[in-house]
Amino acid sequence: MTFDRHISLAHGNGGRFMRELITEIFARHLDNPGLDVSLDAAPMDLSGVDNDSMIPMITTDGFVVQPLEFPGGDIGSLAVHGTVNDLAVCGAKPLYFSLNAIIEEGLESDCLERVVKSLAAAAREAGVRVVAGDTKVVPRGNGGGLYLATTGVGLRPAGLMLGMHTIQPGDQVLVSGPIGDHGIAVMLAREEFQIKGDVQSDSASVLPLAEAAMAFEGLRFMRDPTRGGLASVGCEICSATGLGLRLMETAVPVRESVGMVCEMLGYDPYYLACEGRVVAVVAAAEAQALLEAWRATAGGNQAAIIGSMVSDKARLVLETELAGERVLEELEDDPLPRIC
Amino acid sequence: MTFDRHISLAHGNGGRFMRELITEIFARHLDNPGLDVSLDAAPMDLSGVDNDSMIPMITTDGFVVQPLEFPGGDIGSLAVHGTVNDLAVCGAKPLYFSLNAIIEEGLESDCLERVVKSLAAAAREAGVRVVAGDTKVVPRGNGGGLYLATTGVGLRPAGLMLGMHTIQPGDQVLVSGPIGDHGIAVMLAREEFQIKGDVQSDSASVLPLAEAAMAFEGLRFMRDPTRGGLASVGCEICSATGLGLRLMETAVPVRESVGMVCEMLGYDPYYLACEGRVVAVVAAAEAQALLEAWRATAGGNQAAIIGSMVSDKARLVLETELAGERVLEELEDDPLPRIC
Repeated sequence: MTFDRHISLAHGNGGRFMRELITEIFARHLDNPGLDVSLDAAPMDLSGVDNDSMIPMITTDGFVVQPLEFPGGDIGSLAVHGTVNDLAVCGAKPLYFSLNAIIEEGLESDCLERVVKSLAAAAREAGVRVVAGDTKVVPRGNGGGLYLATTGVGLRPAGLMLGMHTIQPGDQVLVSGPIGDHGIAVMLAREEFQIKGDVQSDSASVLPLAEAAMAFEGLRFMRDPTRGGLASVGCEICSATGLGLRLMETAVPVRESVGMVCEMLGYDPYYLACEGRVVAVVAAAEAQALLEAWRATAGGNQAAIIGSMVSDKARLVLETELAGERVLEELEDDPLPRIC
Repeated sequence: MTFDRHISLAHGNGGRFMRELITEIFARHLDNPGLDVSLDAAPMDLSGVDNDSMIPMITTDGFVVQPLEFPGGDIGSLAVHGTVNDLAVCGAKPLYFSLNAIIEEGLESDCLERVVKSLAAAAREAGVRVVAGDTKVVPRGNGGGLYLATTGVGLRPAGLMLGMHTIQPGDQVLVSGPIGDHGIAVMLAREEFQIKGDVQSDSASVLPLAEAAMAFEGLRFMRDPTRGGLASVGCEICSATGLGLRLMETAVPVRESVGMVCEMLGYDPYYLACEGRVVAVVAAAEAQALLEAWRATAGGNQAAIIGSMVSDKARLVLETELAGERVLEELEDDPLPRIC
């Protein structure tokens, strides 16, 4: 690289340094013939869209995770997975991405480059193209190293009727894998906690899992349990449907290492973020078949049926191992800030 | 509002406080039936798009301006104008927006509300709908109050052939109004400079100006001169076309108040950001007609023909009042950081 080892304010000024930053880090790794850095706006090929067969969907996410790099991922791959997954759980195939980077003066350019490279790899794997971008540099002490914001555009079949409003009593609730890995991995990567552990973030595209689920006519709703975790998705479902949701503690997959850290530090895995899991609600008759389909899909080998919808008070109840009950309330305090 | 006067980390945790923040500040002012805050992704109606008549365009921008509010605008209206204008100068009609807010713990919620209200008003005026959003809260000392990132989607006529590659020797260069107002207005709003002035930002949608220009067959290229100002647009044109661009100092509109501040502080107005101006390159035969069309359009009454493309060394030359010449080089240092 022809520029300094650290990002300076001059890299955000619209002049030569900014052009070099964009060319040598962003455009180079996102090597995309569609990414013409001299354009104000980029074209998207959405041919065939007529609102009868395919509907264009848009979603957006900001990323402020600390540290920027953690076991199993970094802010770059996380930004792609977070945005891909929001489209995937709506039944949409992600196609185009925009990327905003707010860079703090002093960030090591090597770190920035690793993150952009990882972002580019995640985008390629998910089949999305970064077609628009912007960079800003903020003065030292104003930024936390790097913040990213991504917007994704995708297409979903017009006939697909997913939504909390379709959920019925008796429907079964599945999760595609162990919960809380991302939250704990990021937490352990913060040196402040002085705890070592081998937990990897689950950060990944859930597109294959979402596509597998869409084959089922009885699929009602999907959501990726990020900030606020499984419990927050559950509370939202109860609040939107007026139904109760009963989770079986023994059925919810939690890695032993995650469970141990939670016990040591007093975290509740039900509220910890995942970045590569799907929660699905499906008609009871198809729950077992969806479970098998997920277990045969990449990222789904530890999928489980974890609970069911009931005609009861609209609240999320955890049936504990010893046949007790615990109500999981909507999150108030922030147990673990900046995990995405 | 039921929540505290200041934003706290709990407003970013995915739980109740975050829901209240989104409902009471964002959703309320962006009162948009399309903004369903419980959705992971939102549908966009782009019916009729077939890549033969209209092409979907995407653009994105980050905003880190300091202070958040300044004479003539704030970070909210600026975010809308910046993104609308990137689409407008490509010949696209902006339709849908996504919005990311990265909020610093401790920001006054009244300030956030004013900014979101202003953003909503600017969006309504430009005819765009905010259909997707995300909020994050970062700890005190990590954020500069508020950063925004916006992505815009619009449609442009497929037959429209705008681009620097269409620029010919002899083409005329126009600007739609006085330059540098935004840069100076933001600078004066920073108390550190201890200078008072009555300069207002030019922050505005240039959609009417862009639409007026698109009526001309000889229109080659448009650009909004933001970071790096008029000189940066000029340098980029020279570099892309291999042609020279000669600007006439006496023809470039600069407000007296802006010129005075520049003289006092040693700024060069050619490098100062505008947020509501358009630079257009047009065939010589249509330059006068475009000038008249712009002068009859809102925001264009001080438009001017400011220079011409020449078969000469690929550089931007300013012909000074006293018949001298000054080469305007690509920007290196950052004269005025965080103006957008």
